[in-house]
Amino acid sequence: MQLAMIDGAIRPFEELEPAYLDRGIFFGDGVYEVLRSYDGRILALDEHLRRFAGSLAAIGITGVDMDLIRSRVLKAFEAAGIANAKIYFHVTRGSAPRNHLPEANLQPNFFLTITELQDNPASKANGIAVSTHPDWRWKRCDIKSLNLLPNILARSDAAKKGCGEAIFVDDAGLITEGAGSAFFAIIGQTLQTAPLTANILPSITRDFVVKAAEKVGLQVVEKSLTPQQASAADELFIAVTTQDIVPVVKFDGKVIADGKPGKYVKLLIRQFRTFTVSD
Amino acid sequence: MQLAMIDGAIRPFEELEPAYLDRGIFFGDGVYEVLRSYDGRILALDEHLRRFAGSLAAIGITGVDMDLIRSRVLKAFEAAGIANAKIYFHVTRGSAPRNHLPEANLQPNFFLTITELQDNPASKANGIAVSTHPDWRWKRCDIKSLNLLPNILARSDAAKKGCGEAIFVDDAGLITEGAGSAFFAIIGQTLQTAPLTANILPSITRDFVVKAAEKVGLQVVEKSLTPQQASAADELFIAVTTQDIVPVVKFDGKVIADGKPGKYVKLLIRQFRTFTVSD
Repeated sequence: MQLAMIDGAIRPFEELEPAYLDRGIFFGDGVYEVLRSYDGRILALDEHLRRFAGSLAAIGITGVDMDLIRSRVLKAFEAAGIANAKIYFHVTRGSAPRNHLPEANLQPNFFLTITELQDNPASKANGIAVSTHPDWRWKRCDIKSLNLLPNILARSDAAKKGCGEAIFVDDAGLITEGAGSAFFAIIGQTLQTAPLTANILPSITRDFVVKAAEKVGLQVVEKSLTPQQASAADELFIAVTTQDIVPVVKFDGKVIADGKPGKYVKLLIRQFRTFTVSD
Repeated sequence: MQLAMIDGAIRPFEELEPAYLDRGIFFGDGVYEVLRSYDGRILALDEHLRRFAGSLAAIGITGVDMDLIRSRVLKAFEAAGIANAKIYFHVTRGSAPRNHLPEANLQPNFFLTITELQDNPASKANGIAVSTHPDWRWKRCDIKSLNLLPNILARSDAAKKGCGEAIFVDDAGLITEGAGSAFFAIIGQTLQTAPLTANILPSITRDFVVKAAEKVGLQVVEKSLTPQQASAADELFIAVTTQDIVPVVKFDGKVIADGKPGKYVKLLIRQFRTFTVSD
């Protein structure tokens, strides 16, 4: 008799909720997005859905109706009635007894949560400390997949050091990105960040940052930084959907400039705000 | 109001089964083992539990009572009453609303399935074809974690090519291991396989293979192979808990030797069988 056990309790296989046999939990065989709303308006929904479709295609999950995903997101957002919301959703390849090779005709699973966004005004006003961590991730970080254990381990390591984010450094000694954010340095009138390769998530917030940079007179250079270059920069910051721009004032223990958010990062934060307001 | 949505249905957050908020699905934040039994006897339970404890420690999941895990495995195995069983279990860091940084005092989740093992006598008798795939996995494949998407993608790619397993080749052009198995070549009287590094799973079946090799007069060499060396070998095989030794007769389309399982691999299969029989 085939059976399952959840904690100490034996359960017949047939009575298992599909969630227990989700390929998302067995293999991380799925992709996700995180969106946020500002004052009742979701920012960049189209861009997130486009990226999501790209992630699905990259891992070969087919038959997902993107219009249905959009309508579900909007329906849930409306039902939640949270003005500043964090919207998370994932699609996995489906539920089935565990086998590496997926069965034909699996039905993808969709799961979404909407929660009140936890803004952190102190981080934005005073900046955060970050620490570096070897980039242990897989080689297709351009896909927003559920395989996030290296990110968790790096973030936990950073937290132990009193830091708010981990910054990944690859085998070549170059910064790729943060464990859950894009990473930027301002050197003179230049905004520098890693180019988008197969090992960098095409961050949507990054696009907004680049747009903001042009508005405030910064020249954008896509070139990877070393930790040495980063810690000698005039200003540093991370960018992430849920918090947009967060200044970085300490890098691996080294205080950046005078240890306070600099002129350009403040201008960028102000500029970013204009993107989040309804026309 | 914070809420969740499962497929199209809105569900209050509070009513969600913990499985939906499992860090295993959000991040692959957990580790697993696969065991098998031969004729009512589980092979190498101690070794698997030891490796499992190592995986838990490596990702910092604490407070898991290994004696409890052992007793659950035995209880479920007894209840199932399957002589040739495949036993899968995982432990994740616990269930909570999605946040990279784990909450303190999370309660780890345990999940297990026992199913009838699907033996494949044709594979064992005739051998299988394999194809190579770039090793896209993270840099800590010594940890048996739930982050298995690169393995799934590689295995799916192999299946499309009519192959039964994908063999990973790293950036240096060296074979690491199979997507779900260890990989071996026999050259003359030498059995060659990759050394155990941070990017190779310490396979328990590998230990049995090494023991068997000594019994049949093969000298074991731990040295990575290139695909060129592998396709020129006298014999090839993979080793995996669920199927022990499976001959490989075709490598990236190239027929190995005369295209049939060779002398040594047959001796190894016979020798392996002696390990699986009760004393």
